[in-house]
Amino acid sequence: MTLKRSWIDSANSAETDFPLNNLPYGVFSVPGKVPCCGVAIGDAIFDVATAEASGLITLQGGPYLQHGTWNPLMAAGPVVWADLRAQLTTLLAADNADTDTLQNLLVQQADAQLHIPFTVAEYTDFYASKDHATNVGTMFRGAENALPPNWLSIPIGYNGRASSVVVSGTDVTRPYGQLKAPDADLPHFGPCARFDIELELGAIVGTPSQGMQSVDAADAMIFGYVLLNDWSARDIQAWEYQPLGPFQAKATATTISPWIVTAEALQDFRAPAPQRSRPLLPYLRESGPMLYDIDLSVGMTPKGGAETIIARTNANQMYYSAAQQLCHHTTSGCAMRTGDLLGSGTISGPEKDMRGSLLELSWGGKDPLTLSGAEQRSFIEDGDTMTLYGAALGAGFRVGFGACTGTLLPAKPLPDWATT
Amino acid sequence: MTLKRSWIDSANSAETDFPLNNLPYGVFSVPGKVPCCGVAIGDAIFDVATAEASGLITLQGGPYLQHGTWNPLMAAGPVVWADLRAQLTTLLAADNADTDTLQNLLVQQADAQLHIPFTVAEYTDFYASKDHATNVGTMFRGAENALPPNWLSIPIGYNGRASSVVVSGTDVTRPYGQLKAPDADLPHFGPCARFDIELELGAIVGTPSQGMQSVDAADAMIFGYVLLNDWSARDIQAWEYQPLGPFQAKATATTISPWIVTAEALQDFRAPAPQRSRPLLPYLRESGPMLYDIDLSVGMTPKGGAETIIARTNANQMYYSAAQQLCHHTTSGCAMRTGDLLGSGTISGPEKDMRGSLLELSWGGKDPLTLSGAEQRSFIEDGDTMTLYGAALGAGFRVGFGACTGTLLPAKPLPDWATT
Repeated sequence: MTLKRSWIDSANSAETDFPLNNLPYGVFSVPGKVPCCGVAIGDAIFDVATAEASGLITLQGGPYLQHGTWNPLMAAGPVVWADLRAQLTTLLAADNADTDTLQNLLVQQADAQLHIPFTVAEYTDFYASKDHATNVGTMFRGAENALPPNWLSIPIGYNGRASSVVVSGTDVTRPYGQLKAPDADLPHFGPCARFDIELELGAIVGTPSQGMQSVDAADAMIFGYVLLNDWSARDIQAWEYQPLGPFQAKATATTISPWIVTAEALQDFRAPAPQRSRPLLPYLRESGPMLYDIDLSVGMTPKGGAETIIARTNANQMYYSAAQQLCHHTTSGCAMRTGDLLGSGTISGPEKDMRGSLLELSWGGKDPLTLSGAEQRSFIEDGDTMTLYGAALGAGFRVGFGACTGTLLPAKPLPDWATT
Repeated sequence: MTLKRSWIDSANSAETDFPLNNLPYGVFSVPGKVPCCGVAIGDAIFDVATAEASGLITLQGGPYLQHGTWNPLMAAGPVVWADLRAQLTTLLAADNADTDTLQNLLVQQADAQLHIPFTVAEYTDFYASKDHATNVGTMFRGAENALPPNWLSIPIGYNGRASSVVVSGTDVTRPYGQLKAPDADLPHFGPCARFDIELELGAIVGTPSQGMQSVDAADAMIFGYVLLNDWSARDIQAWEYQPLGPFQAKATATTISPWIVTAEALQDFRAPAPQRSRPLLPYLRESGPMLYDIDLSVGMTPKGGAETIIARTNANQMYYSAAQQLCHHTTSGCAMRTGDLLGSGTISGPEKDMRGSLLELSWGGKDPLTLSGAEQRSFIEDGDTMTLYGAALGAGFRVGFGACTGTLLPAKPLPDWATT
């Protein structure tokens, strides 16, 4: 786990998210051009679409990189994934003597716009942090019923809305919904007053499947990971979620980081699962460490103000791995498809400042946060920008995701038909 | 509401689901040919793909019918939908004197295989029958907590799994899952023992939307309807559904009828909503009757046995219309896309034989059904075939969906890794 050096100087910095060790995949455009596939390297993006079209990269069964989305490559399977990574590593390594042609395929990230890196087939959200489930359960159902009876046996999940998934940098508009005050008899329709984030890791299915898959097989199906902010309307959720689960509370937006960090890039950062409070059923047992040691944090920036880091946690706090979640997802015979996105669920840790949502950080609004500019926050206010950060830390380098950010815009005016 | 006569004799029968009044859309193939778009008419299918390709049908902005799926036409919007229906009505009407060319575009349904008629973007399932919600709530939570507090205010829904949707005639394999017996401390992993159907109507979004839509606007977005069987593993559901809703219990299969009956074909069969037990919030109020008067029934056929009709109900038993459900679905800003499928939820009625699931019909297994061959059933046994039927009834004609059927195959052998 040492830095692999590149001929692109900015990739050799200890501060960049994108050294040669990483090589994450995104989709970028420059003014006047269509979006195309690229790889982040230091401050630059390497245009792999052109590299493939010009024969600098050749992949069995390709071309795969000509459609402005990574889905064709994702569907090609692990052998092709490894081959592309190996070719990119060779092309961009410091010992490559023939870089003149390659120089022309570099675009500065500052000059590019980033787009959603893959087409989301379906989106599933899980509930894999024991601390998060305990915190939320305590607030919603009381301490004695905090952790549902099934939680220690099932990687609990529910289907989310793929059409809600947007790339980092997309503004989010405060939603409307049905709200019922605790002391009211009946609900009203109005703007959400408790809009929140959820700090998650998203796993992306590459290889499709039919039928039940083991944890190991499921792990091999995962192409890579993104940071994921599952924006959540807590007041809408509280009124709607019984008995069939969250619905409109989670459908406003789900922001993902612009770069897919491949499973291969994260292999050196595997971490073991925590001790099991109850033995897992055989089908869910792991053959090895399947979590990842990825530092995660949340920044909150009021409009015109400075950013405060309000939480720091780690992906190794998950109780169930993405591989276990995906295995469980297939038990019913559910077909999985290239581009399926699996959110980890909010990743909280045992300490107060390790909580991955404002609901937990402000304990339902009872204990507001104080930001660096002295503003107080229980939930997100109009104009606030919320940013997730994540990186696996090597010796003198980091394998990062880039920022996963979004700004909350005020609710739109309510149309007449909704009020009269 | 009288029969429109066609030059295709079988379409003029009072028994056919497919008179000229209907003109439902499907995708069919004959041996050696790729699947293509067709319209059911009597015992035949009219090959609209060839009709469009040869200029017998011309549509503004087309061609739309050349891809073996109805999505391109669905995305074209109501003006094009109405134009296609008008052209088909003219071509297939009894007073068309020039039918020689058209005869060559007819295929007998008996000679064709039917395929899924559209690509499902996302699948949402609702809970719109008050009798069903009351029955299930009584069994799961007791009579005093049967109807959740939000039920009379919100068209409750949850996201389902689009990859589970299959066309009528597809076999369904009994799923595995985590099961916990009421008297057991811990769950085990095994085949579902309480596999069930849900009799539903599926609404298909044609026109996409961004942002909140009124009930009227939502109604205009709906391209058509299918019968929908939301196969359900009740024992998996009972253990998994708290707190985030049904997940693997609903992911094995969702069968839809092969023919999309267009919203336009159903306009003469509009039915009013029931009296409201609690006034709806303004955004959910209807400007007119938005339900449909569609007779629905469920047939159960043991392997090698005769079919018994075990339930008869009507789509006018829904408390919320598909338009209200779709409107609610957009309140959070959720984007809707061409091909989104909205299940109504099980449509039960107030009488015992109007219940749209075996869970209700056998009251959780306490009151088994007796079929015509004297077999008893609480839930579905291996080899049983379950079939949904539906038709709106005119004077001497019916606008039907064709059968929505599936046979339950035994669970596959459990792999070693899942047991040890």
